[in-house]
Amino acid sequence: MDFENCFPVWKKLTDAQKKRIKDNLYQRHVAKGTILHHGSMDCTGLLLIQKGLLRAYILSDQGREITLYRLFDLDLCLLSASCIIRSIQFDIIVEAQKDTDLWIIPSEAYQEIMAQSAPVANFTNEVIAARFSEVMWLMEQILWKSFDSRLAQFLLEESSLEETDTLKLTHEAIGNHLGNPREVVTRMLRYFQSEGMVRLSRGIVEITDKEKLLSLVHTAGSR
Amino acid sequence: MDFENCFPVWKKLTDAQKKRIKDNLYQRHVAKGTILHHGSMDCTGLLLIQKGLLRAYILSDQGREITLYRLFDLDLCLLSASCIIRSIQFDIIVEAQKDTDLWIIPSEAYQEIMAQSAPVANFTNEVIAARFSEVMWLMEQILWKSFDSRLAQFLLEESSLEETDTLKLTHEAIGNHLGNPREVVTRMLRYFQSEGMVRLSRGIVEITDKEKLLSLVHTAGSR
Repeated sequence: MDFENCFPVWKKLTDAQKKRIKDNLYQRHVAKGTILHHGSMDCTGLLLIQKGLLRAYILSDQGREITLYRLFDLDLCLLSASCIIRSIQFDIIVEAQKDTDLWIIPSEAYQEIMAQSAPVANFTNEVIAARFSEVMWLMEQILWKSFDSRLAQFLLEESSLEETDTLKLTHEAIGNHLGNPREVVTRMLRYFQSEGMVRLSRGIVEITDKEKLLSLVHTAGSR
Repeated sequence: MDFENCFPVWKKLTDAQKKRIKDNLYQRHVAKGTILHHGSMDCTGLLLIQKGLLRAYILSDQGREITLYRLFDLDLCLLSASCIIRSIQFDIIVEAQKDTDLWIIPSEAYQEIMAQSAPVANFTNEVIAARFSEVMWLMEQILWKSFDSRLAQFLLEESSLEETDTLKLTHEAIGNHLGNPREVVTRMLRYFQSEGMVRLSRGIVEITDKEKLLSLVHTAGSR
């Protein structure tokens, strides 16, 4: 896939704007686990995913994490270029969760075009609004869903993303996705195991009853 | 104050765009407690506050609330016109927390201008990003601050907004701001009272030691 076909508003750019992006664009292949962007330390640029998976998360002063959202093929990561919008007053970290091919659009070039072009500015709007919506969804989960439901949902999602029922995940890594301490994860996973939904071994969570996990996602009430 | 002086990008509009807004704009005075916008039921329009105070909150299926942010003089409420941006996939409720004078810009007129005008689209971007930042701040509080710290902070904020140390607030209303059940609020307020920070009576929380409340805000660790 060419950049032209992956960047949603390409056809609405002027020739000069197209050239400005093409001249500044670069392509990167990053290995799973690479940190692509780290908070306010840098204004990395916009990341357009050709193929792969990125994870955006935040970090507390005490080192606790929570995953905000994940970005898939053809998604655009804008918060890694948060310097282009003054009112973005928070920092995220972006990590490759799989080996990923992506394009990086430098912040200055994008910002310059966004200032001139209503289509690019409106596209940017939609991207921010989409991430905002994901964070709102997450907040509602944290506020109003019980932890068993969130954990069940996470295991099912991960199993679908990795296309396997045998998940290589430590309890700490799961806690980092969900924003909970490791001990809380361990306690709930042991309960899931006692109910026959998973089988636990060192660094592995094997899903043994998908239906039952799914029923937890749907029936869970408020916490 | 005229609308022209309150609307930030007025000078960047064309004459036709100015006329389009002027012809569609209307002014409203709403009493404290008025619900101005309720979720996806309506696309109310953009609300520009001339003078007053609005509160934006979300509601769970079980009827629990949490305040997302408040809007002050000259702030623009955009999520009450969420139909103008397709990717906004969540519903908020907007309520007047004080008697409020405001202008309503109908959604269609604004959307039409935003599609043509890079300055308006970029201004819209900044507004969404500012609200997104407030929600991110709130999420970090919920995840990583203890409830005593959040409650102390809320009481101090409310005291500053209402310019009094005697707050007319039920425990339920406080719970609705902070996203916690009433019993949790009552328990913590009784602890604050036993520590001499507040005095409680029916429907009233009187702040008796601001310094001590403030120290709770600053020293509170992760939950």
